[in-house]
Amino acid sequence: MTIQIHKTVQAFRSLRRTIPHGKSIGFVPTMGALHAGHLSLVREARDRNDIVVASIYVNPTQFGPNEDLDKYPRQMESDKKCLEELGVDHLFCPTEMYSKIHRCYVDPVGFDNMREGSARPGHFRGVATIVNKLLNIVQPTRAYFGQKDAAQCVLIKRLVADMDLDVEVNVMDTVREEDGLAMSSRNAYLTDEERGAAVIIHKSLCAAREIFEGSFAGNLPMDANIISETVISTLETEPLVKEIEYVAVDSKETMEPITEIGPEGAVLSLAVKIGKVRLIDNFIL
Amino acid sequence: MTIQIHKTVQAFRSLRRTIPHGKSIGFVPTMGALHAGHLSLVREARDRNDIVVASIYVNPTQFGPNEDLDKYPRQMESDKKCLEELGVDHLFCPTEMYSKIHRCYVDPVGFDNMREGSARPGHFRGVATIVNKLLNIVQPTRAYFGQKDAAQCVLIKRLVADMDLDVEVNVMDTVREEDGLAMSSRNAYLTDEERGAAVIIHKSLCAAREIFEGSFAGNLPMDANIISETVISTLETEPLVKEIEYVAVDSKETMEPITEIGPEGAVLSLAVKIGKVRLIDNFIL
Repeated sequence: MTIQIHKTVQAFRSLRRTIPHGKSIGFVPTMGALHAGHLSLVREARDRNDIVVASIYVNPTQFGPNEDLDKYPRQMESDKKCLEELGVDHLFCPTEMYSKIHRCYVDPVGFDNMREGSARPGHFRGVATIVNKLLNIVQPTRAYFGQKDAAQCVLIKRLVADMDLDVEVNVMDTVREEDGLAMSSRNAYLTDEERGAAVIIHKSLCAAREIFEGSFAGNLPMDANIISETVISTLETEPLVKEIEYVAVDSKETMEPITEIGPEGAVLSLAVKIGKVRLIDNFIL
Repeated sequence: MTIQIHKTVQAFRSLRRTIPHGKSIGFVPTMGALHAGHLSLVREARDRNDIVVASIYVNPTQFGPNEDLDKYPRQMESDKKCLEELGVDHLFCPTEMYSKIHRCYVDPVGFDNMREGSARPGHFRGVATIVNKLLNIVQPTRAYFGQKDAAQCVLIKRLVADMDLDVEVNVMDTVREEDGLAMSSRNAYLTDEERGAAVIIHKSLCAAREIFEGSFAGNLPMDANIISETVISTLETEPLVKEIEYVAVDSKETMEPITEIGPEGAVLSLAVKIGKVRLIDNFIL
């Protein structure tokens, strides 16, 4: 089957109305520049739904004024081909999603105070707004997101619950390169040397997990600082790590910081700059 | 047919899934204390849809800290009876719509700066959030609102457009008592004497309209001040008008203030206190 392309909300909506009530729809929203992480979401959606919809839209409202909106990687033709090969039925790729008199945004209260949120003010407001819009347009049975964006996953679960959206949110494990680097569209910005150095991110998370699972496993709650300090000291061994923006230990449910890790676990997340490239990663402890 | 009552989101959602794709659903969201204005919305919904859903929920997030949430009139049993007599199929009347970890709100940027918005900070955020939630739960074909809440009608049209909600918004004319007072659940607060005095609101709007349609009709644009001053001077003839909160001339499309009324017209709206009771009304010029 050829993938069907829909470039406007109206066009997608016309299609949507023709899909019978009983058919399940799996939806994978993306900003394009697809990598193995996205493709694992698409495969899961393909396996579990009658119809698979993907979207590609580089959402301006989730980029800060000093962020990489203009140079965010765009590769529509190869992305399309990729999605078609994986059996995606419909691609929604609008060029514009905000009218000139757009006023209503989803405000996720508190998310700007979290580590990833305070590093990128307004980012989660933009994410919540666009995901809400896309879910309203696509009206899927199930939507798929990657664990790599840990705070985003927590946000989207809250969005769906708070806004009473009728969709099942599925969070899939982070897909990694062979050396452990999390797949990311932004990896394309790395020079070869930086790409080599970036493996330190995964190493630092593994070091922390080893300590968590080793010495302290039978001895919870444990001090969250021990975990974050392990990550930091490992990252500091790599000279190409130019900035450690944050290393955070947060609640799995709300992404609010915790000082002690109990039996319910935690999200260990970080953001660092390798050269000029900002990379994020996380482990669920 | 007996009206079916649904008290939780889950219960309504189960029902919603049984409604065939092709059936049209008309939805009238209310806060109860139904009056002839609400009932005109219900009748219109009944005339034009296969299935009619009404909701009754006194939404706490649209009341300010010093507003009348606790004493807002509640009369569930008579409301139910009323809706049943008009042929409503389903009543959604949840007791709680916000979880303890509710975070996501709809932020309608700019609405707090409008006249009705600045008089009630946070009010339109609460309205937008609850209407968004209700539309997601009910998933109607058409939703019905009364023109009496002029800014609310503009807001809801923006909400539906900005959030890409797939619903047709219908705004119905304000229903009035014989002497011209706009129907409102808050009219129940008025003493007999205040009720008599409240007719001045409609009179003041009529006086302004007469001037607009009379002397100036062939001579647009006209100075918006002439209109608002006519309203104010008429209101001031009634001693029981304790406070003129605002008299505003705004754009029909955005509710932003305008200084001149051109051929595209305007919304003339006001809020006054008669005794302790805050009343609003408006005319479309």
